[in-house]
Parts: sequence; C-alpha cells; structure tokens
Amino acid sequence: MTKMTAEAPLTREMILNAAEQVLRRYGPEKTSVVDIAKFLQVSHGTLYRHFPSKAALREAVTERWLYNSILLPLQAEAEKQEGSAEVRLRLWVETLISKKRTYAAEEPEMFAMYAAVTIEAEELIKVHVNGLVRQIESILEYGVETKEFQSGNAANKARAFFLATSTFHHPAHAPEWKNPEIDKEFDAVWQLLLSGLR
Amino acid sequence: MTKMTAEAPLTREMILNAAEQVLRRYGPEKTSVVDIAKFLQVSHGTLYRHFPSKAALREAVTERWLYNSILLPLQAEAEKQEGSAEVRLRLWVETLISKKRTYAAEEPEMFAMYAAVTIEAEELIKVHVNGLVRQIESILEYGVETKEFQSGNAANKARAFFLATSTFHHPAHAPEWKNPEIDKEFDAVWQLLLSGLR
Repeated sequence: MTKMTAEAPLTREMILNAAEQVLRRYGPEKTSVVDIAKFLQVSHGTLYRHFPSKAALREAVTERWLYNSILLPLQAEAEKQEGSAEVRLRLWVETLISKKRTYAAEEPEMFAMYAAVTIEAEELIKVHVNGLVRQIESILEYGVETKEFQSGNAANKARAFFLATSTFHHPAHAPEWKNPEIDKEFDAVWQLLLSGLR
Repeated sequence: MTKMTAEAPLTREMILNAAEQVLRRYGPEKTSVVDIAKFLQVSHGTLYRHFPSKAALREAVTERWLYNSILLPLQAEAEKQEGSAEVRLRLWVETLISKKRTYAAEEPEMFAMYAAVTIEAEELIKVHVNGLVRQIESILEYGVETKEFQSGNAANKARAFFLATSTFHHPAHAPEWKNPEIDKEFDAVWQLLLSGLR
C-alpha cells in the first residue's frame, strides 16, 4: 500500500488563494513569503519551490485577478452577437473603466500592487492587453457587419481604441480618476473615437 | 542717500536658475534647500522667504521648464496660418512627444521629479494642459477653415485629442516609450483620431 501523508498536496490554486487573502489582510508592502507560508502551515522552503520570489507571487496573484475580474467578465460582452455595435463597444469600455475605478477606490493597496506589476511584468501585461484588444476587435468586426463602422484594419483600430482610452483605465492614471471632469472628458474622447470608427 | 548693500537683490529668476543647476548636479532626491542656499551664498532662511518648502521649489522649477521647454516652442507651431492643418497637427503632437521622450531618456532624474509634480501639483498641471489644449484647438479651428476638418465643438475635440494621445506624452507612460512598437501604436491612434476629425 502507498503511504498516505496527512497533508493535502499543495496546489498553485491553494497558494494563490492564500496569498491573496494574506496580501489583502496585511497589505502588499508588509506581506512576506513567510507570512503566506505560515497561513498555509508549510515551510517557506516548500513555498519557494512553487514561487521563487515574492515578486513572482505578486505577479501570479495580479495575473489571476486580471484574468478573472477583468478579461473574463468582459469576454461575455465581446461575444454577444446582437444589438448595436456602438452600444456594445460603449458598454464594454464603460465596464472596463468602472472595474478599474472600483478596485482603485475600494482596495487601494492591492491596486497599487497591480499598478507596480503593470510596470515590472511586461510580458504578463502584454498578454492581458492583447486579450482585451482582441475583444474590441471582435466588436469592431461585428460593427462592420451591421454597417455601423467602416471596414479597415480592425486589429489596428482596436489597439488604437484601447490606447486612446488609456487615461480612463490605465492604472498610472488612477490619481486623475477623482477629477470631477473625468466623465465629461471620457465622453469627449468617446465621441471623437466613434466619429473615427463610423 | 539710500544705503546700498553689497549683495544684489535675490530675484525669483536667480533662485530658479540656481535650483535647476543644483537639482541637475545632485539629483532631485539628494538636493536640499540648504544646498541651493549655499550655491547662492545666502542663508536658508532667506531662501525660505521666497520658497516655503522644497516642494514649492520643485514645483516652480517644473513650472518654468514646462512653460519654456514645452508650451512656448509648441506655440509657434500652433500660431502658423499656412499649410495643411493635418500636417500642422501631426507636427505639433510629434514635437510634444519627442520633447517628452528626449527629456525622459537624457535626464531621467529630472524627468522623475516632473512626473511626481504632475501627480502632486494639480493646479499647475491643469494650467499647463489647458495651454496645450488651446494650441490644439487653434489648429483644429484652422482645419475647419481649410475644410480639412469637420466643424463642431473645437474645445471638446481638442481636449479629446490631447487625452487620446496621453500614452505617448503623459509622464506616467514613460516606461512604455521604450517599447519598439510605440511608433506603430502612435500611428494607429493618429489614423483613428484623424478619421474622427475629418
């Protein structure tokens, strides 16, 4: 018979769940890998075999958050095949903006961690942004079918739309989101971009 | 007869010249008000009568730099009344982007100071941005006259154009400017905005 250990095997998912809880409780600055190991009741050596550094853990937590809380909910909006493309695109970008603003306001320390990862972990962010751009592209292609938008290089236009709205969703702009003019400013950008797509 | 002092009166201009030299030499982090006072051969009490804090000095140096090195050179481009509005607008925004990139690459410590001031000194930055937006507005109005651009609320469109190009000139995006795709990305945004203006 195989010898059974008392401990359940430590999965990546278990570690990330624990890391997220501990990061939330102590704040990303004060949390150490040892804190997370203690929470999981494993040695920090065991934890280091899964994540070689605190930076790697922070990145993995951010990556999961970006996927589960941003990319996945927006995917539903991007996949709809009914209604006006203009309305769908506006709803998509407003959802993105609202998720970012809520996170920045309600969990400022976790948001600061995500903003730092955005600068450090180029590859991770590139994958995330490419995912978002593909969603925009799919709405633009739908808009060409419904004759709301002009045809052309949809991939380029989608990237341009994403970059041109950065002020409202890129974490580096978070200090500006408290500006009382921000919604008016978004509307001015939206109108200009919409004219460009039509 | 009025009593003459040996010292020349300390002007704001003299202080800012000294502050800029000392900040450049030691770096904004390491420079203290005392260093600047020493450079000017005055007591730091004298200096504090003009600038109540290191933050006030940093802001004044940044304000002068934004005015002399960004707003003023761009004003010439904005005031021309000849040629194509499209070419003028592209030249204006490329000049802005190139000035920011050069500063970020050649004087990274001074650029970091300017980026920090951008976040802290809201009113100063608001005045600067309003100046830039008025320059864009003047080119857009010229473009309506030359029949290159559609008429409409030029002030709103100018602000939208400024915000939609933030990725390429807002100091918070400086880490992205080293991306080899950045010029291609600018071009995609430019094409979309131009379609929106026409």
